[in-house]
Amino acid sequence: MNAVVFVDLMGTFVFAISGALAAANKRFDFMGVCIIAFVTALGGGTLRDVLIGAKPVGWMENKWYLITVLIGVLITFVFYKRLQHLRKTFFLFDAVGLGIFSIAGLEKALSYGIEPTYALLCAMITATMGGMIRDVLCNEIPLIFRKEIYATAGLIGASFYLLLNYLGLPIEFNFAFTILVVIVVRVFAVKWNIGLPKIQVD
Amino acid sequence: MNAVVFVDLMGTFVFAISGALAAANKRFDFMGVCIIAFVTALGGGTLRDVLIGAKPVGWMENKWYLITVLIGVLITFVFYKRLQHLRKTFFLFDAVGLGIFSIAGLEKALSYGIEPTYALLCAMITATMGGMIRDVLCNEIPLIFRKEIYATAGLIGASFYLLLNYLGLPIEFNFAFTILVVIVVRVFAVKWNIGLPKIQVD
Amino acid sequence: MNAVVFVDLMGTFVFAISGALAAANKRFDFMGVCIIAFVTALGGGTLRDVLIGAKPVGWMENKWYLITVLIGVLITFVFYKRLQHLRKTFFLFDAVGLGIFSIAGLEKALSYGIEPTYALLCAMITATMGGMIRDVLCNEIPLIFRKEIYATAGLIGASFYLLLNYLGLPIEFNFAFTILVVIVVRVFAVKWNIGLPKIQVD
Repeated sequence: MNAVVFVDLMGTFVFAISGALAAANKRFDFMGVCIIAFVTALGGGTLRDVLIGAKPVGWMENKWYLITVLIGVLITFVFYKRLQHLRKTFFLFDAVGLGIFSIAGLEKALSYGIEPTYALLCAMITATMGGMIRDVLCNEIPLIFRKEIYATAGLIGASFYLLLNYLGLPIEFNFAFTILVVIVVRVFAVKWNIGLPKIQVD
Repeated sequence: MNAVVFVDLMGTFVFAISGALAAANKRFDFMGVCIIAFVTALGGGTLRDVLIGAKPVGWMENKWYLITVLIGVLITFVFYKRLQHLRKTFFLFDAVGLGIFSIAGLEKALSYGIEPTYALLCAMITATMGGMIRDVLCNEIPLIFRKEIYATAGLIGASFYLLLNYLGLPIEFNFAFTILVVIVVRVFAVKWNIGLPKIQVD
Repeated sequence: MNAVVFVDLMGTFVFAISGALAAANKRFDFMGVCIIAFVTALGGGTLRDVLIGAKPVGWMENKWYLITVLIGVLITFVFYKRLQHLRKTFFLFDAVGLGIFSIAGLEKALSYGIEPTYALLCAMITATMGGMIRDVLCNEIPLIFRKEIYATAGLIGASFYLLLNYLGLPIEFNFAFTILVVIVVRVFAVKWNIGLPKIQVD
């Protein structure tokens, strides 16, 4: 397993737990929790693969994706109560996952000959659509439509990564710097409650 | 029309009626009922085809799929009240449909060179995602996330079928035995109210 | 930019504003409004492309699709209140968009070798599924399941267009006539409150 797949699996793990927690709060059974965890972790990448015409979809090419989702579900089953007390840790993990999936989505789209503009959209789709589908399946209005700078943080991160690669910097540096940018954007957005502008309805 | 397509159409018919009934209960108009019946019956197979890269999707290759859905809708329109009294018959039909679609999904995935593990997932997707999309479109939380052993029954059936084929038994026997397994699992799950474990939330 | 793309962009523009207005009414932020506008305008065509196996999806082949959606969003941001007073204009625009997307969906499906029956379904999918996904993401039951003759108007328009082309009439005439048919059907359906039959539930 190379480094790229390893960090992608880290993102998968974080989002699988996020999905499993949401499903547990809705009192879904084991199968329901598995489906929601799967969709949250792999739904964004699946949508990207379908849009760019990658076939079969990415998670069918490496068993570790399924195994990672299953581990995330089992950990949520066993440690549900303790996970409730780790909100701050989770927030950080989630930001890391957001950054990882943005980069992974960008790289895969570029490797399929997709132009940079669309590849940036693919980055955002990879990082946020899993969570969006999770919310739809749980019959909630997707968080990303209202949440403090979230999809935008992924887009900013992916843009930085693209720029740094274009400048010819070493990829390890670009990767670490991008994740840092996403974390910083998320931390400040939440800390200072910064949101994007809304249309004045009233 | 060969035997495989015929049984697949039986599954399509059962699920189309199930979708049409759900849409009727939501007071959708004729077009709405058609769309929900179509999605319930053919949505799971469509998702599977998109994931494995089959193109175009299966229901575009044989007119009988559309015709069968339309017949299911018309029957629901004409016999709506009588269908309400056939709950037990329907339960059985639904279990048969679940088994048929699991096998059909498994076979199609394998025929596209998908590995057995993923083919089993494709079986489950074929059999259950149509109903899941139906529930999402009706603005309900999908039943399969909470229902007594349902998606799991499809997965158990598909696993049996895969095992029996591996053992080299005649395919007619495997088919019949798998459907029987799915029916038995469903009947016992509902009769004894057996569900999968849930996460202890409180 | 040729004439076909230009009219397709007109449809995109109308549906992007329709999506942006729906998102604004739900108090989504700028990113949420962009996502809903994008999905409403391009979701139907994307689904069609995925079903017929066009890759990558259409909006990745011409930057003007994204730009048009963005212009629609910006106009909604700036002129939100004035747009509220243009309901009648919008109703007309929406009918034009419905007609344009039906024709565009039909043409693209036929150009991929899809049979006429399925191409008609692709026309309806192109014209209505974007709005359906918009409603699902906004956690509403899709309008098209209950609305006066809407998806049906698109289907009627596409059928006319197919017939006129078959008769060998000049394409500009067929296009204009089809749009007119869709507008007429919509106007009369709404004016006289004509709906499709529903199943008698009680």
